[in-house]
Amino acid sequence: MEIIREVKAMKAYVRSIRNKGETICLVPTMGYLHEGHLDLMRMGATMADHLVISIFVNPTQFGPNEDLDKYPRDMERDEKLAASVGVECIFFPDASQMYPDGYATYVNVERITQSLCGASRPNHFRGVATVVAKLFNIVEPDFAIFGQKDYQQLAVIRRMVNDLNMNVKVVAHHTVREKDGLAMSSRNKYLSPDQRRNALVLHKALLYAFSLVGSGEKSSAKIREEVMDMIANTPECVIDYVEIVDPDTLEPVESIYADVVMALAVKVGSTRLIDNMTLEV
Amino acid sequence: MEIIREVKAMKAYVRSIRNKGETICLVPTMGYLHEGHLDLMRMGATMADHLVISIFVNPTQFGPNEDLDKYPRDMERDEKLAASVGVECIFFPDASQMYPDGYATYVNVERITQSLCGASRPNHFRGVATVVAKLFNIVEPDFAIFGQKDYQQLAVIRRMVNDLNMNVKVVAHHTVREKDGLAMSSRNKYLSPDQRRNALVLHKALLYAFSLVGSGEKSSAKIREEVMDMIANTPECVIDYVEIVDPDTLEPVESIYADVVMALAVKVGSTRLIDNMTLEV
Repeated sequence: MEIIREVKAMKAYVRSIRNKGETICLVPTMGYLHEGHLDLMRMGATMADHLVISIFVNPTQFGPNEDLDKYPRDMERDEKLAASVGVECIFFPDASQMYPDGYATYVNVERITQSLCGASRPNHFRGVATVVAKLFNIVEPDFAIFGQKDYQQLAVIRRMVNDLNMNVKVVAHHTVREKDGLAMSSRNKYLSPDQRRNALVLHKALLYAFSLVGSGEKSSAKIREEVMDMIANTPECVIDYVEIVDPDTLEPVESIYADVVMALAVKVGSTRLIDNMTLEV
Repeated sequence: MEIIREVKAMKAYVRSIRNKGETICLVPTMGYLHEGHLDLMRMGATMADHLVISIFVNPTQFGPNEDLDKYPRDMERDEKLAASVGVECIFFPDASQMYPDGYATYVNVERITQSLCGASRPNHFRGVATVVAKLFNIVEPDFAIFGQKDYQQLAVIRRMVNDLNMNVKVVAHHTVREKDGLAMSSRNKYLSPDQRRNALVLHKALLYAFSLVGSGEKSSAKIREEVMDMIANTPECVIDYVEIVDPDTLEPVESIYADVVMALAVKVGSTRLIDNMTLEV
């Protein structure tokens, strides 16, 4: 497995693959890999001739008071895990490779970046769209796989790829969960044992909403109220948002007559967790 | 010569070239071709296996009170001219192909877009960067040629290509002028015979600044003052800006000890013209 730290070297690596007419699948990550990432990679290994992942904790998608500095990193472990699922190359640049002096260009996806996580994390999706556009130009993948846990991120990237006519097929991978239902996330590492138990309320709340819709409830307001009560009554849990939205536009839906997505963000202690689920009518 | 109006068909055309391992040069235009465009195309025909041009009057780079609707168009004439210089394919989309319903993604290049034309045309370079990013993804050119007459546009595109790691080489082509010195522009068509004569002051002012620097003048303030007097004393001419800037950052230079660019924009009657020249020390 190759580890490439420079943009120029990565482009040369890609060129040699492209010249043979072979295909590339990219799984972009911020590292500290967990079973969710590995599942995306296993999927990626089956989709193209070459599986490339990127590990880059992207500074432009973190706000000034967020966890950029303490975001967990463990490259040695990540290398072993990546090799075990068939990764052929890790693109592992540092920030000065990606954002050299004088850097000035950003990709903005309007509207769908304003709600949900975008409301409490201004500029977050500008950073995501920008770094993903750069990765797509550097790695030139035929396929790129993103987890559905970051539902809004997936929608933003799809919008960008479509709008800017990028030559990559974006593939969604279902949210991978721990046995007890907690969505896998590198940030779960921040949780104390008590917080870890309390955090289960995110998944429970989604399942409860799913069951309400399944039994005929049409009112988003009613469902949100019940779910918000459930979360608010859990120790150490503070709601950032609980929303029921259109799967494509991410705009709030008032009455549920077609599949919708419930998305939520909750601070458990000082750790902000997100999760979502499609509620099927 | 092929004329392709749909993004999907254009991508298929490009794919067939790429699969043969052949190269593409793109000359993006807004049509109403003049000798300046044709010179870029002649250059392009020598640089790659295939010469593609685009003709698209891009709405996102026009302000609400600008000349989008009256911008000159003559596709029949453009086709003949393009064929005469070796163009193999014209990508000729309409606005709904490029900006379908729900479109939401824009590329912003910060800082260098704020001065010069950016100051009086907010969002202009956002539109330019966005449409050029789209054209690059659709046509996947190895080379793309831009005229130096639009100096700031060239700088913005270079910055974007560099920052977003795009796989295209941006090539500059010197400003092509009429015999009497007026820089060629599709907008020259708007000028009355009197205005056409008055418009010569742009080039004369640049030559005068060039001679001042050549004879040892170091003060930008002094040079700008003389040039602004010259233009202001010409009938129907109203200055938008006259600036002496660093060739890369486009930031104003006060004392001239290295090559600088003088850039100017002047309204002649209701027609806004731009021109620029490198002033060599």
